[in-house]
Amino acid sequence: MRNEQIKILTASLTRLLRRGATKHLLNIITKTHMADLSIAFKELSPDNREKLFKLMDDPEQIGLLFSLLDENLFLEFVKHVEFKKLVTIFDKMPSDDAASLLTLLDEKLSDQILSKMQEEESDNVEQLMSYGEDTAGSLMVTDFVALEEDVVAKQVIEALQNKYLDVEMPFYIYVVDKYGKLVGVSSLRQLVVVHPEKPLKEFMAKDLVCVKPYTDREEVARLVSRYDYLAVPVVDDDNKIVGIVTVDDVIDILHEAATEDILKMAGVGEEYIETQTVVKRAQMRLPWLFASFLGGVASFFIIGGFEESLIKFTSLAAFIPVISGMGGNIGTQSSAITVRGIGTGRINLQDFAKVVSKELAVGLILGLVYGLFVGIIAKFSFETNSFPMALPIAVGLAILTSMSLAALLGAMFPLVFERFNIDPAVASGPFVTTSVDIVSIYCYFMIANFLLGI
Amino acid sequence: MRNEQIKILTASLTRLLRRGATKHLLNIITKTHMADLSIAFKELSPDNREKLFKLMDDPEQIGLLFSLLDENLFLEFVKHVEFKKLVTIFDKMPSDDAASLLTLLDEKLSDQILSKMQEEESDNVEQLMSYGEDTAGSLMVTDFVALEEDVVAKQVIEALQNKYLDVEMPFYIYVVDKYGKLVGVSSLRQLVVVHPEKPLKEFMAKDLVCVKPYTDREEVARLVSRYDYLAVPVVDDDNKIVGIVTVDDVIDILHEAATEDILKMAGVGEEYIETQTVVKRAQMRLPWLFASFLGGVASFFIIGGFEESLIKFTSLAAFIPVISGMGGNIGTQSSAITVRGIGTGRINLQDFAKVVSKELAVGLILGLVYGLFVGIIAKFSFETNSFPMALPIAVGLAILTSMSLAALLGAMFPLVFERFNIDPAVASGPFVTTSVDIVSIYCYFMIANFLLGI
Repeated sequence: MRNEQIKILTASLTRLLRRGATKHLLNIITKTHMADLSIAFKELSPDNREKLFKLMDDPEQIGLLFSLLDENLFLEFVKHVEFKKLVTIFDKMPSDDAASLLTLLDEKLSDQILSKMQEEESDNVEQLMSYGEDTAGSLMVTDFVALEEDVVAKQVIEALQNKYLDVEMPFYIYVVDKYGKLVGVSSLRQLVVVHPEKPLKEFMAKDLVCVKPYTDREEVARLVSRYDYLAVPVVDDDNKIVGIVTVDDVIDILHEAATEDILKMAGVGEEYIETQTVVKRAQMRLPWLFASFLGGVASFFIIGGFEESLIKFTSLAAFIPVISGMGGNIGTQSSAITVRGIGTGRINLQDFAKVVSKELAVGLILGLVYGLFVGIIAKFSFETNSFPMALPIAVGLAILTSMSLAALLGAMFPLVFERFNIDPAVASGPFVTTSVDIVSIYCYFMIANFLLGI
Repeated sequence: MRNEQIKILTASLTRLLRRGATKHLLNIITKTHMADLSIAFKELSPDNREKLFKLMDDPEQIGLLFSLLDENLFLEFVKHVEFKKLVTIFDKMPSDDAASLLTLLDEKLSDQILSKMQEEESDNVEQLMSYGEDTAGSLMVTDFVALEEDVVAKQVIEALQNKYLDVEMPFYIYVVDKYGKLVGVSSLRQLVVVHPEKPLKEFMAKDLVCVKPYTDREEVARLVSRYDYLAVPVVDDDNKIVGIVTVDDVIDILHEAATEDILKMAGVGEEYIETQTVVKRAQMRLPWLFASFLGGVASFFIIGGFEESLIKFTSLAAFIPVISGMGGNIGTQSSAITVRGIGTGRINLQDFAKVVSKELAVGLILGLVYGLFVGIIAKFSFETNSFPMALPIAVGLAILTSMSLAALLGAMFPLVFERFNIDPAVASGPFVTTSVDIVSIYCYFMIANFLLGI
C-alpha cells in the first residue's frame, strides 16, 4: 500500500470505529497486511487505537503487530493484554522478535512471561537476549534448515515439506558434517535443478561467508549487501550453526544506521525518538549543544582580548559572521563527505594524507574565490576607511584562512576519531563547527591587527 | 571477506604483480569473489590496476567487475578492451547492469555496442535505458519466471530446470492469465511443498504489490522493506509483467539514499564523488556555499547598521559568535530530526503544527538554559560595565530568541519544502544555518539597543 492508500485506510478505520461497525472492522483487520495496519495504528487517536487493538484476537497477528510498532505504542498495548494471552503471543512469535520485545518490558514481567513459555522456545529467546544489542546474535533467527551432507536432494525436499514447514526463509539449505559443523550451503533453487538422488555434499557450495554471534550488526549488513546474499549463517566458536541473519533484518539495520549517522552528525545523539515528550527531548539534546556553548565562550574571550582593535575599527565586528559562517559550512561539507566515505568504505585510514591534502586543496580554491568576493564587498562598503586596502585584504585573507583550515579540520577529525575507534559521525558534528569558529576568529583578528598596524 | 582480508588481498596482488607471477594472479582472479576483487582494484595503483585488468579474460567476470566498479574506474578500463570483446561482455551481462553502464559511455560507442549485440538482449537493454534514471524501470531485471495459471507444480519445476536455468533470482514464480496479465505469485518454497499435480492458480497468492516502470525507485525500496519482500514485480499499464526489482538492488538504493541525504544536508549536492579531481570537487561545492555567503553578507550589513551601538559598546561584538553558533547548532538538530522523520515516514505533513510547536517548545527550554549560562558569563566578565545588568540580560535574551527561532525554522523549512515537493534534505542544510544567522544577529542588536537605551 502506498502512503495515500494508508491515509484512506486510516480514515475508514476512524469512521467505522465511530459507528462501532465491529464486523467491518474485523474484516479489515484480517485482510490488511500487518505492515500497513501498524502504520494506520500510529495515525489513529489514542482512543481509537485502543478500541481497534481490543478487537484483535489472533495471537500470531498481535505478535506481528507488536514487532512492527514503535516502542512506546507496543508498551501501551501490552498493558491491555491479559498475562496468559501475552504468553501465547510470545510463544508464537519468531524468537528474534520475541527477544527484542521482551528486553523492552519491565524485567519482572519479561521473566514471568519467559517462565511460562514453552521450554524450547524460551531457551531460544533467552539465548538471543544474552547477546549484546548491536550484535549478529541479537538479530538472528534460530529457525533455519540444516541437514547432513549425505542427505540427497529428494530427502531435502521431503524435510522441507515436513520438519521445516515453519521456517521463515528456507531459501538456503545449510549443510553440516556429522559433528554438526557447518561445511557448505545449497539453495532451494539448486534443489529443484539437481537430480533427486544427488547428496548435498555433491552440489553444495563450500566457500561460505559466516559471522559469529558477537559480530557487529553493521558488519553483517555490509557483508550481506556486498555479496547480495539473502541470509548469512551465524556460527559459534566451534563452527556450529546457531542461527541466520536474513536480508529483511539487514534492510532494517541499514535504515537505522543511516538515521543514526544523520542524527549523530547533527549532534542529536543516536537514539532520538520523535515521540518523546518535549522535556525529555530537551534533556537529550542539551549535552550535544555544550560543545558549541564552550566554543562560543572561547570565541567571546578571544574577541574580548582584541577589544582595543575593535574600539579603533568597529567595522571589524561586521565580518565576524561571514568568516565563521563560511568556515563552518565548508567544514560541515568536508566532514560529511569524509564520514560518509568512511561509512561506505570508499575512504580508508591508509588514505589519510591523500584525503586530507585534497580537502585542504579544495578549501584553498574555494577560500580564494569567496575571499575575493567578500574582500570586494568590504572594499566598496567602507569608503571612509583610513586604510583603503588593508581592511578588505585582511577580510579576504581571513576568509581564505578560515575556509582552508575548516576543510582541513573537517576531513581530519573523522579520520582521527576513526583511528581511535570512536564513531566518526559523532566526531564530525558540533566538534568541527566549534573548532572552526574558534580558529577562524582568532586568525581573523591576528591578520587584521597585523595589516591594520594596531 | 572483511576489510582486513581485503587489505591482505591487495598486498598479495601488489607483490605478485611486481614479480610478474601471472599464474598465481590468474588463480586469484578465478577464486576471489568479484565483490572483493572490485574493492582491491580501487586500492591498487593505476599501473597495477591496468596490469591486473589485462589478465582478466572471461567476459562474464569482466561484466560483473564493471557493474561493481566506480564510474571512473569503469570508464578507464573500458578503454583497454577491444570493441568485439566489449560487445560480448555486454551481451552476457544482466540487462539492468548493461543498461546503466551503457548510459555512462560516450553515446556513439554505446550505440555501436547496442547495434552489434544480440537482438533480443539489445532490445531489452534499450527498453531499460529509455526509463528515467530514478525509476523502477531503470532498476528492474527482465529475467524472471512467469507461467500461466494452469501450469502444475511439477511442470513449474521442469521449467526451472530448463527454460529458466539462467534466471538470477527465481524465488518467486509470477502467474499470468492467458492474456499475459499478472494475476498472482507463488514461491519456490510453496512449490516444493505442494502436490506435484496442483496447478498454480490453486496455490498462488492473489494479492500482489506491484509497481509501474515509472514508479520512483525510493518508493520501490520503501515497499520492499515494508513488506520484507525479496522482489517486487513491475507491470505496465496493461498489467503485463515487464520485469522485477530484487532486494539486492533495494539495498543499493537505500545505501545511496542515505548518502544522498547526508550530503544534501551538509550542502554538498547529491552526487559528490570522492574520486574526482580537486578542481572538479571545488566546482561542485562552490554553489552550495553561496547561501552562506549571502547570509554572511546580509549579517554584515545588519551589523553595519548598528555601528553606532558598537562604537558605544564594543563588547557587544564579542557575543556574536556564541549567539549565532548556539542558534545554528540547535537549528541543525531540528532540521536533521525533521528531515529524517519525513524520510522514515514517522513525520507526516498533517503533523505540521504539532511537530513545529514541539520543536519550538524544545527550543524555548534549551534557550532558557543556555541563555542563563551565557548571561552569567557575561555578567562576570565585564566588571567595568556602566549598565551592570542590562548587557547580561540582553545577551541571555538574545540566546533565548536565537535558539527558539532556530528550532522553529529548523523544523519548518523541511516541512514547507516537502509540502511543495522539494526534497527536504536539500532545504535543511545551509538554508537553516544561514537564515538562523541573519535572524539571530538582527534580534540580538535590537534587544541590546532597547535594553542599553542606545
